[in-house]
Amino acid sequence: MSWNRTHTCGELTSDDKGEEVVLNGWVSTRRDLGGLIFIDLRDRYGITQIRFDETNSKLHSMAENLRSEYVIGVRGTVINRSKETINPNMKTGEIEVDVSDMQIYSRAETTPFEIKEDISTNEEIRMRYRYLDLRRPDLQKNMLLRSQVTQTVRNFYHDRQFAEIETPVLMKSTPEGARDYLVPSRVNPGKFFALPQSPQTYKQILMVAGMDRYFQIVKCFRDEDLRADRQPEFTQIDVEMSFVDEGEIFSIHEKLMKTIWKKHLNTDIDASFPRMTYREALETYGTDKPDLRFGVPIHDISDVVKDSGFKIFNTTVQKGGRVVSITVPGEGTLGRGALDRLTDKAVSQAGAAGMIFMRLDGGEITCSVGKFLDDETMQKMADESGAKDGDLVLILAGPAPDVYKQMGSLRLIVGNDFNLINRSLLKFLWVTDFPLVEWSKEDKRYYALHHPFTAPRPEDIDKLESDPEQVNARAYDLVLNGNEIGGGSIRIHDHEVQRRVFRVLGIDEEEADEKFGFLLDAFKYGAPPHGGIALGLDRMIMLMAGANSLRDVIAFPKNQKAQSLMDNSPSEVDEKQLKELHIALRKPAPD
Amino acid sequence: MSWNRTHTCGELTSDDKGEEVVLNGWVSTRRDLGGLIFIDLRDRYGITQIRFDETNSKLHSMAENLRSEYVIGVRGTVINRSKETINPNMKTGEIEVDVSDMQIYSRAETTPFEIKEDISTNEEIRMRYRYLDLRRPDLQKNMLLRSQVTQTVRNFYHDRQFAEIETPVLMKSTPEGARDYLVPSRVNPGKFFALPQSPQTYKQILMVAGMDRYFQIVKCFRDEDLRADRQPEFTQIDVEMSFVDEGEIFSIHEKLMKTIWKKHLNTDIDASFPRMTYREALETYGTDKPDLRFGVPIHDISDVVKDSGFKIFNTTVQKGGRVVSITVPGEGTLGRGALDRLTDKAVSQAGAAGMIFMRLDGGEITCSVGKFLDDETMQKMADESGAKDGDLVLILAGPAPDVYKQMGSLRLIVGNDFNLINRSLLKFLWVTDFPLVEWSKEDKRYYALHHPFTAPRPEDIDKLESDPEQVNARAYDLVLNGNEIGGGSIRIHDHEVQRRVFRVLGIDEEEADEKFGFLLDAFKYGAPPHGGIALGLDRMIMLMAGANSLRDVIAFPKNQKAQSLMDNSPSEVDEKQLKELHIALRKPAPD
Repeated sequence: MSWNRTHTCGELTSDDKGEEVVLNGWVSTRRDLGGLIFIDLRDRYGITQIRFDETNSKLHSMAENLRSEYVIGVRGTVINRSKETINPNMKTGEIEVDVSDMQIYSRAETTPFEIKEDISTNEEIRMRYRYLDLRRPDLQKNMLLRSQVTQTVRNFYHDRQFAEIETPVLMKSTPEGARDYLVPSRVNPGKFFALPQSPQTYKQILMVAGMDRYFQIVKCFRDEDLRADRQPEFTQIDVEMSFVDEGEIFSIHEKLMKTIWKKHLNTDIDASFPRMTYREALETYGTDKPDLRFGVPIHDISDVVKDSGFKIFNTTVQKGGRVVSITVPGEGTLGRGALDRLTDKAVSQAGAAGMIFMRLDGGEITCSVGKFLDDETMQKMADESGAKDGDLVLILAGPAPDVYKQMGSLRLIVGNDFNLINRSLLKFLWVTDFPLVEWSKEDKRYYALHHPFTAPRPEDIDKLESDPEQVNARAYDLVLNGNEIGGGSIRIHDHEVQRRVFRVLGIDEEEADEKFGFLLDAFKYGAPPHGGIALGLDRMIMLMAGANSLRDVIAFPKNQKAQSLMDNSPSEVDEKQLKELHIALRKPAPD
Repeated sequence: MSWNRTHTCGELTSDDKGEEVVLNGWVSTRRDLGGLIFIDLRDRYGITQIRFDETNSKLHSMAENLRSEYVIGVRGTVINRSKETINPNMKTGEIEVDVSDMQIYSRAETTPFEIKEDISTNEEIRMRYRYLDLRRPDLQKNMLLRSQVTQTVRNFYHDRQFAEIETPVLMKSTPEGARDYLVPSRVNPGKFFALPQSPQTYKQILMVAGMDRYFQIVKCFRDEDLRADRQPEFTQIDVEMSFVDEGEIFSIHEKLMKTIWKKHLNTDIDASFPRMTYREALETYGTDKPDLRFGVPIHDISDVVKDSGFKIFNTTVQKGGRVVSITVPGEGTLGRGALDRLTDKAVSQAGAAGMIFMRLDGGEITCSVGKFLDDETMQKMADESGAKDGDLVLILAGPAPDVYKQMGSLRLIVGNDFNLINRSLLKFLWVTDFPLVEWSKEDKRYYALHHPFTAPRPEDIDKLESDPEQVNARAYDLVLNGNEIGGGSIRIHDHEVQRRVFRVLGIDEEEADEKFGFLLDAFKYGAPPHGGIALGLDRMIMLMAGANSLRDVIAFPKNQKAQSLMDNSPSEVDEKQLKELHIALRKPAPD
């Protein structure tokens, strides 16, 4: 007699009444009621109640010894539950299985935390026992959502003639941006592979190879210091297309988002997202990833305060800085204590030098630096800030663009603290026209804001050498509710332009040839115009699942020290292994 | 006016006659016929003929300068070709596009080889210019087949409630079998990650986590010396299922094969594959991956020769070895020269000590060692070998199992040399009941034949310590036409049995805990019976595409020194990078 399950624990209904079934699963709970023992048997698909009565005493006493998380197989008959025990919230809530035979596959020790939703167990324990954490319904749901969304994404691209092509994991180290993870070569002593930070050069090569439309859902790696929302390995939806402009890439990916949200969250979104230039985003929202679920835009009030009696305003503007404000609607009566706490946050979290406020209450304007300002100036400041009676105006002064970024952070603090964010909204946005390069004071050189392969806008190419900071790139980010979920660009496909950009970035001919010679060469044999995008799958799933952390949408995440607590990796290796790889450990420097 | 293409180069037909279209693509060929210039414009989707006439002299002279592999965009009108130039073998063969405007996106130098099917260019050049090699129709076809098959595979599993779950690329080094690729950790000095040889332990952990049905199409890595048909990174279809036995895994994967071959090659295969034990495969075909597209089974003729007059036979059998034969049908008249060449191959390629042959011709039997054998013995030998008049019998003697393996190789040589293999057949086969362990003379210890997590057959568990070589495993391989395309097993899910197997493999308690403690721990909290399989995607696609090498179905393969000739990886890295990773290069040992 086979013990193969006939059904999962999530499918029996009263339609199956009278059937003999075999179920397999985990003991979720056991209740002993008089002579009857009830067990909630759990698998990935659901829970089915099974019962043991006293008529089979051997079976009954086996059942008495069942404990949580035992893995069992039961054979029995589907019967209707008594009316008062029907659970209308479960698919299997009308029935139970009257058990006639049982196998115990595996016993279980007491688990270090309960297998249920919303536990408060600390994350270290959860990560160490990841196999138990993953049994919890929230994580199971997240993993399944991820699996299904990923397949929707794949089908979406396949339906549009994209080819999924695997690029190498063992590739060339070309650090330009983040640190590479390196892999020593045994067969090529002294040489190293790098793990891809992105398959950027390969996907461009695929366009030169005529593959036309490429995508890949692919692991990428960055050896960076990990912030709360970063992982050393992450997954991106990587896309490249030939003979396209920004518009075509935008429209396909708007449709992709619409498809995913509709199919998996049953949410309608407009498949035409607003666009905003980087400059507008920075000056209006203080960030390149504005959260548009609430207003509170930044106003530049420099002109109305530059000749005011308040010296800081005057000197800031004289030195080329800006005075900017946001208006918090309806908070004109906010008390001094709350304002002090807000000022603290402006300084400690937003990085501002200080914060000035202005309250519009009962037709009066009071300002924290009011004694230096006349009424007319204050009125103008309020008007420029779009403030009306009853509102609160917050003001920062300082050098640009820092002051915008500080105000952008303050705007988010205000949005959270005063509950201005409508969390039911989905606000997608394309941010465009990023600068091509930015100056690093530290390294005294330009870095590509996006990456060195991003095309400059054709009308700006003449300024490449003379005024590189004024060159805009054909780069774009996809933003959702203040999170960057993707970014891309139209690429350079001309090897002369590519060489010029390398030069601007301080990469000389020799270095360019050494690192990217194959791409420059490839451009000599007929390269199509091309562009693409990469979407952060982990973050996208996190937002879809409403999870708080990337770690809740990744099966086996690392902690902030890049360690896996479950299996204790990374770990020490044998000297023999190192020897074969022609490397040795460095002695730690004396303290 | 937009230059976005309205059509690809593979779709226009006479239905589109009169339409104004924009095409983008590569100049494949140019023919100048009097005043007319014809160009075959190529993209991934096909070729469309475009024409320039003399009426627009500026355009005509631009066209005169077009060379192979230039990338252009053309605008023009679809017209019917003249009758005599219609090409019925192409979808676009009825029409051409009369060009009215053109853009040159990119010029091209002369390519180092022609972009066409079946080139004889050496592989080193092809790999260096991979972006050109990938433009060739054969490789384009292979990449697209791979992309599409992969998606069919994914949909197949998704339709059956498998969840695709990503396991880490940065994992723990647990070398047990092949060498690991190592990745030094910057944040954890002196410690290393390993790249997965397979996600084996993770997929088992996912079963313990209750994920029930897992699959992943995943890159794996083995740092081994590369034979012609190996790559340092390869892709496997990785599967694990809970509450299953061999039968369920077999039947799902038979359906998968049926689905793939039907959908992509329009080939019907029986969705019920024969099964053969390892022992039978070895003794009948001399290999664990028999090619069943031809017969020629191995016969054990030890009993009829053990008391013959030929000493080698006698002593071989006395020492426990075997005398085995195969019969080559219809080759009883093979000449001495051909037989000498065959003997050479038996020695040099199959590793035999020597080869004895017997010709059955015109009712007579002649044998290369006939002077030591009487007629009756020779007749018995022929009978035991299933030989009839007109056949050739080849005989090897030696210790088992080596002599079987030698005969297995000789069988393949014979199959090829005498054209016995029906290449239109698809012969799938499950090989089962592998031994659990094999003894390594070199290391003086047992190794797991499959891997240390493979379940022993329940009836053999008692012999685990007393006679481990007699323990059969619940392991199986999927073989297609003599190629292993997959392998798997039912796993151990009991931590005591797992500990016992580790002990047999000479892995002591401490080492087991250090390397696999998390899995042993996981088994304590309720582990379901589970098993799985891994299919080699690269090899499967190679067989489907009829390609000769894995390198023809991988976009960016490595050569046999694990190098990528296109981008020169692996390569040297900066001392600064090594320092950050707490490693140093070892000085090469003096010669």
